[in-house]
Amino acid sequence: MKAERLTLHSDRFLGVSEESRAVARRLFAAVEQLPIISPHGHTDPRWFANNIPFDNPTDLLLVPDHTIFRLLYSHGVSLESLRISTSLETSKTDPREAWRVFANHYALLLGTPSRIWLDHLFAEVFALELVLSPVTADDYYDQIDAQLKTEEFLPRAILDRFKIEFLATTEGALDPLDSHQKLAVDGLGKRVVSTFRPDDVIDPDANDFTQNLAQLAELTGENTATWQGYLAALGNRREYFSSLGATASDHGHPSAQTANLLPSECQRLLDKCLKGTAESAERELFRGQMLTEMAAMSIEDGLVMQLHPGSYRNHNDSLFHHFGKDKGGDIPVAMEYVKSLKPLLDRFGNSASLSLILFTLDESTYSRELAPLAGHYPCIKLGPAWWFHDSPEGMLRYRQQVSETAGIYNTVGFNDDTRALLSIPVRHDLARRMDCQFLSGWVTQHRITEEQAVILAQDLAYRLPKSAYKVGAPDA
Amino acid sequence: MKAERLTLHSDRFLGVSEESRAVARRLFAAVEQLPIISPHGHTDPRWFANNIPFDNPTDLLLVPDHTIFRLLYSHGVSLESLRISTSLETSKTDPREAWRVFANHYALLLGTPSRIWLDHLFAEVFALELVLSPVTADDYYDQIDAQLKTEEFLPRAILDRFKIEFLATTEGALDPLDSHQKLAVDGLGKRVVSTFRPDDVIDPDANDFTQNLAQLAELTGENTATWQGYLAALGNRREYFSSLGATASDHGHPSAQTANLLPSECQRLLDKCLKGTAESAERELFRGQMLTEMAAMSIEDGLVMQLHPGSYRNHNDSLFHHFGKDKGGDIPVAMEYVKSLKPLLDRFGNSASLSLILFTLDESTYSRELAPLAGHYPCIKLGPAWWFHDSPEGMLRYRQQVSETAGIYNTVGFNDDTRALLSIPVRHDLARRMDCQFLSGWVTQHRITEEQAVILAQDLAYRLPKSAYKVGAPDA
Amino acid sequence: MKAERLTLHSDRFLGVSEESRAVARRLFAAVEQLPIISPHGHTDPRWFANNIPFDNPTDLLLVPDHTIFRLLYSHGVSLESLRISTSLETSKTDPREAWRVFANHYALLLGTPSRIWLDHLFAEVFALELVLSPVTADDYYDQIDAQLKTEEFLPRAILDRFKIEFLATTEGALDPLDSHQKLAVDGLGKRVVSTFRPDDVIDPDANDFTQNLAQLAELTGENTATWQGYLAALGNRREYFSSLGATASDHGHPSAQTANLLPSECQRLLDKCLKGTAESAERELFRGQMLTEMAAMSIEDGLVMQLHPGSYRNHNDSLFHHFGKDKGGDIPVAMEYVKSLKPLLDRFGNSASLSLILFTLDESTYSRELAPLAGHYPCIKLGPAWWFHDSPEGMLRYRQQVSETAGIYNTVGFNDDTRALLSIPVRHDLARRMDCQFLSGWVTQHRITEEQAVILAQDLAYRLPKSAYKVGAPDA
Repeated sequence: MKAERLTLHSDRFLGVSEESRAVARRLFAAVEQLPIISPHGHTDPRWFANNIPFDNPTDLLLVPDHTIFRLLYSHGVSLESLRISTSLETSKTDPREAWRVFANHYALLLGTPSRIWLDHLFAEVFALELVLSPVTADDYYDQIDAQLKTEEFLPRAILDRFKIEFLATTEGALDPLDSHQKLAVDGLGKRVVSTFRPDDVIDPDANDFTQNLAQLAELTGENTATWQGYLAALGNRREYFSSLGATASDHGHPSAQTANLLPSECQRLLDKCLKGTAESAERELFRGQMLTEMAAMSIEDGLVMQLHPGSYRNHNDSLFHHFGKDKGGDIPVAMEYVKSLKPLLDRFGNSASLSLILFTLDESTYSRELAPLAGHYPCIKLGPAWWFHDSPEGMLRYRQQVSETAGIYNTVGFNDDTRALLSIPVRHDLARRMDCQFLSGWVTQHRITEEQAVILAQDLAYRLPKSAYKVGAPDA
Repeated sequence: MKAERLTLHSDRFLGVSEESRAVARRLFAAVEQLPIISPHGHTDPRWFANNIPFDNPTDLLLVPDHTIFRLLYSHGVSLESLRISTSLETSKTDPREAWRVFANHYALLLGTPSRIWLDHLFAEVFALELVLSPVTADDYYDQIDAQLKTEEFLPRAILDRFKIEFLATTEGALDPLDSHQKLAVDGLGKRVVSTFRPDDVIDPDANDFTQNLAQLAELTGENTATWQGYLAALGNRREYFSSLGATASDHGHPSAQTANLLPSECQRLLDKCLKGTAESAERELFRGQMLTEMAAMSIEDGLVMQLHPGSYRNHNDSLFHHFGKDKGGDIPVAMEYVKSLKPLLDRFGNSASLSLILFTLDESTYSRELAPLAGHYPCIKLGPAWWFHDSPEGMLRYRQQVSETAGIYNTVGFNDDTRALLSIPVRHDLARRMDCQFLSGWVTQHRITEEQAVILAQDLAYRLPKSAYKVGAPDA
Repeated sequence: MKAERLTLHSDRFLGVSEESRAVARRLFAAVEQLPIISPHGHTDPRWFANNIPFDNPTDLLLVPDHTIFRLLYSHGVSLESLRISTSLETSKTDPREAWRVFANHYALLLGTPSRIWLDHLFAEVFALELVLSPVTADDYYDQIDAQLKTEEFLPRAILDRFKIEFLATTEGALDPLDSHQKLAVDGLGKRVVSTFRPDDVIDPDANDFTQNLAQLAELTGENTATWQGYLAALGNRREYFSSLGATASDHGHPSAQTANLLPSECQRLLDKCLKGTAESAERELFRGQMLTEMAAMSIEDGLVMQLHPGSYRNHNDSLFHHFGKDKGGDIPVAMEYVKSLKPLLDRFGNSASLSLILFTLDESTYSRELAPLAGHYPCIKLGPAWWFHDSPEGMLRYRQQVSETAGIYNTVGFNDDTRALLSIPVRHDLARRMDCQFLSGWVTQHRITEEQAVILAQDLAYRLPKSAYKVGAPDA
C-alpha cells in the first residue's frame, strides 16, 4: 500500500467550471481573511478558561466528534476501539491504538464532510503531506501530538491564530458557568460566551426533570412549583447567562410545537409534569408553552432565541444505554412548522423585538415552510444548513431553496455547531467557499453584479451573524 | 452613497457556463418573440374594460404586489408606510412617500424574484439607468409617473405592446362580470376572459357562505338549499362564465381532498353547512365532494379544471384582521394528493374529456406524487412552479423533478399568476429563459438534439398553454 | 414528415461542460467494460431456462415495460391498442399494429428515461439509423423482428454479449423455481438466481392469503396455522431459494412499519389474518412483525434483506380490475422510516450479520432519514434511486442527497429492477455514466482526486453490488 499525497487545492469548492470559479475566487478573496463569528457551538469552555494543552490527537480530533465515529460505527467499527467512554467508565483504549483503527477505516469517509474537514486540518494546520492511512497512522499521531504540545496549539492561541472574534459555547440552565466567570476575569468574557440552553428545566421528558426544578429553585430562591415562581426562576437564570455575555438561548425540542395557554392551565400542566403524571401530549403541550414563554422573555431581556427541532434523539437504544447520548444515534424526522409555531406567532410574530432563528433537519421544509415564514414575519430569521446538512451539497441546497423566497437578509450566516475546536476554522472556510460558489452562480447568470455579490458574501461571512446574534465590538 | 448603474444583460438566466449558454441563447431566440398566453392571473378586468391610465407608480407596482411588500414587512417595514389600505379605510399614505420607503429597502430584495422582475421592468420598460435606491427614488417616481400618463401605458396598449394574445382574470362565482361584458362589446371578449373561481360558494369556510348561496339562488333562479338546485345553480354560473369566454375554473382549497358521496349524504352535508353546524371534517368532506362535482361539470361543459391547494391562508392573525387577505401572510403546508384525489379519480380519472391541472406549494410532491399521477392518468396535467416557486431556482427544480416521470407533454407551460400587469411580460421572459436553460442542459448532455429542444421550448412557451387551456385563435 | 437521424453521442450523460465532462470521460473509460451485476430485477427466468427466441418486437420491448405504456396511457392511448392483455384474456391486437401505435406517440416520450433507454437500444443494439416515428415504424418492426430470430438474440447469448455476470429474478415464496432448477442443471445456477419475495405469504392483504398459507403448509409439511409452524415453513422456503442460488429476499410492503411482539400476540394476529377478521391496523402490525421475523431469519441464513416500501399499488381502480397489476397505476406516497423501523432495529440494528438494504420512492427521506440511518446503523445500506427515480436527474439527486451523510460505502451500486431484458445493459450504461458525471463534480471541486474517483466509480459499478448482495465468483 503506497501512501497518497495529501494536497489542498486553493480552488477547492469554488465551482465546477472555470467561468463560475473565476468569479467565486474573487469573492472568496474578499471574505477569506474576515474574522470568525461562531455564535452557536459546543466546545468546552474549560479549554479556554484553563488554556492547557490538549492531551493527544485522538482526544482532540476523534473522541469529541460524533460526525466521524458514527460513520466508522456504521461500518462495524466498535466505539470501544475508538476510545469512546461508556456511560459508566472512561475508555481504557490506548489513544494511539484508537488512532490506528481510525486510520484503517479512513478511506470509507471519502467524500464526506468529516473527511473534507479533516484533510483540510491535516494539510493546512498540521502540515501533513500524505493522506491518513494504515501506513501513515503512526507518523500522523506523532506529528500531531508533538504540535499539540506547542504554545500555538493552546486553546487561546487557537482563538487568536484563526481570528475567532466571537465564540459561543452552550450550557444548561443549571450550569454555574465557572469557566465563563474565569474568562470574564481574564478579559475574555465578551469573546467566549455561553448560550442559555434550558431543555433540562423546560422539557418534562428530560432526565430528572423534577430534581432539575428543585435545583433551579435552590439556585434562584424561587418556588419553581408555582407557575409564576418557575417563570421568575427561568428569568433569573437568563439574566445570569446574560451577565456573563450570553446573547442567545437555544432550544432542542423534538418538534416545533408552541402553545398559548392560560396561566391556570400552565399551573395544572406544571403540577402534572412535576408529579410525573403528565401524558405524552401534555408534556408536548408544556414544552410548547415554554417556547412561547421563552419568546416572551426574549422580548424583555433581548436574548436571541434559537429553535433546533426535529431530531429523534438516541434512536439506537442499546448504544444509548451503553454509551450515553451524542454518539451518532440521533436521526431526523419529518417536521412541521406552520401550524406548530402559530400560537407563538399569534402572540409575538409581529414584534420586531423578538428574534427567532429557526433550524431544520427536514430539507423539505426549506422552501415549503421556513422560507415563506421568514419572508413574512418580522421576528423570524433562518439559521444555516444544520448538522447533516452542513456539507457542500447541503449548503447549496439550503441557499437554493431558501434565498429566493426568504431573501438572503432573512438568514444569519454560518454556525459551525461543533464540539471539535480545530474544526471551527475549517468549517467556516468551507462555508465561505460554498457561499461564494453559490453567489458566483448568481453573477454568471446576471442575477446580481459582482460588486453586489462581494457585499452579500461579506454579509454572510461576517456582518449577518454579528447582527443576528447581537455580537458587540471585539474585546479591546 | 453612489448610485449603481442598472444593466440588463441579454444573456441573463441562460446558464452558468458558456457551453450551455450558447445553446440556450439559440433556443431563446426561437421563443423570445412568441405571443404571450396568460391563462391564469389576477389582474383587474376593469383596467382593460375602462382603459384609463394608472394613477401613479406606487399604485401600479407596489400596492398590488404582495410578493414585494411581504419581504419589506419581514424586515420591519409597516404596511401603512407602503400605502397598503386596511380593511376599513383606504390608505392615506402619500404615494411618493411610500415609494421612498420602498426605495430605502430595495437592497434587501437582492436576488429575489421580485427584484429580478422589477429590475427588468425598470431597465427595459421604463428605460431607467440607475438602480433604485434612496438616491434615485424621486427620479424613479417622476420618470415612471410621467410615462404612465402616455398612451403607450394604457392597459390595452400594454396588451398589444407585449403581445399578450390571451389573458385570463379570476372572478368569484357571484361576480356579474361587468368588465368582461364590456370587453366583449369592445371586441376583446376572447382575448381577456374570466376564470370561474367558485371557492366562495363551494367552501363552507368562506366568509358569508350561507349568504353567498342565497345570492347564488337569486342570480340563477335555483333553490340552492337543495342539492340538485345547488348543482344546477353552479352549472348555470359556469355557463355564464363560459359565455363570456372563460375556458377554465380554478379551485383554491386548503387540501386536495375529494369525495364521492351519495346524493342523500350530500344533501345532509349541505344542510349542515348552510346552518353553520357542520364540523371541520364535514366541511372538508363537503369541499371534497364539490371538487368531484366540479370535475363532473367540467366533463359536460368543457371548462378546464385547476386545483391550487395547500396554502394556509391568512396565517398572521393580527395582520389579517387589520389589513385583510392577500397581504403576504399565506404560508404553504405539506400536501398529499394520492389518497386525497382517489375518490375523484375513481370516477373520472380515465376520462380524456376531463382536464385537471394540478399545482402545488409542496415541492416534495413533485417527484413523489404529482409526476407519477400525471404520467399515468389521462385527465391529469401539471401546472407550472407556483407562487413562491415561480423563481429561477424554483422553475429549475420543477423541471428537474417533474419532466422525467411525467414527460414534458403532461405539463402546461407557464402561468404568471400575477396581480401586477407589467409584471406579466417580465415573468414570461424569465420563465422562457429558465426553460431554455433547462433544455440546454438536455442538449449538452445529448439527451435530445437541439432541433428537438427548439420544438420543446416553443411548445412550453406557446403551444402547450394554448392547448391545455383550450385557447382559441386570436381575435381577428 | 421527415425522419430524423438517430445518433448516440459517446459523451452522452457525462456532463454539461467540457471541464467536468473530460474527467467523467476518463472515469467512464474505467468502468464501461466492467461486467454487469444485476442483483434485483424482474425478468422471466423461463427465458434463460428455455433459451428460445423472443416472439416479436412488441412482446419484447413494449408489452412487458410499464414505464413506457403508462406514459402512452396518460396521453389517451388505450392499453388494448398496445397489445396489453386483460386479466381475463390475452390481447388480440396484432403486434405490428401495436408497434405502430407506439411509434405514433413516440415523440411524447422526449426526455424521459424510457426514451433514453429505447434510443440507446435502437441505435446501439439494433443498429437503427433513424428515429422511431410513424414514418419508420414498419421498418423498425421488420429490422428488429429479423434480428430477434438470430442466435445472438437468444436470451443466454444476450447474457454473454452484455457481460451480465450475475442476474437475479424475483419469485414468490410458493414458486417451484422450475426454471432455476433447469438453470442449475445447465450450469447457470449461480449466474441466474431467484430472489425470495414472500409478500404473498406474509402480507394479509395479499390476494388469497389464507389459501397461500395452506399451499405453504403443503409445500413444507409444516402447520402454517401455528406461529412456530408458520415461521418454520418460511425458513424452509428461504432455504429452498438459497439452495438454488438466491442471495437475497425482497419485501414490497406498503410502509416500512416493523414490530416486535410477543409470540402469543403473533399467534393471535395470525389467527385473525387467517380468518380474515384482522382489521387494517392489525394487518399492518402483522406485516411489520413479519419484517422483523425476516430480519431474524436473515441473520441465520445469510439472505440479504431488501425493503421496497411506499408504493400505493393499483391506484387506478378500473384499470386494475380490467388489466390487473403492474400496469402503470402504482403511485408513491409519503414515507416514514425512523419510527417505523425502530422495533426491528431495536432487536437487530447493531448486528453486522444482518444486511438490510432500504429503498424509497419518497426523495424527501434521502437526506432526512435514510442517509442518517445508513450512516449510523451497521446493518443498513441504501439501495439506489428506485423506479421513477431511476433516471438521470433522479440518480443525481440520490447521490447528492445521500453521499455526504451516508458515505458512498453505505450504498450498494445500481439495480436495474427491470422486466425488459434488453433494457438491462442500457440501464447500467446510463447509471455508470451518471455516477461518473457525479464523481467528476467531486474531482473538479477538488473534493477527491481523480485516482480516488476511479476507485469509487469501479466500486459503484461492480464491487459494491457484488459484496452487498453476496455474489460469489462467476460460474467457471
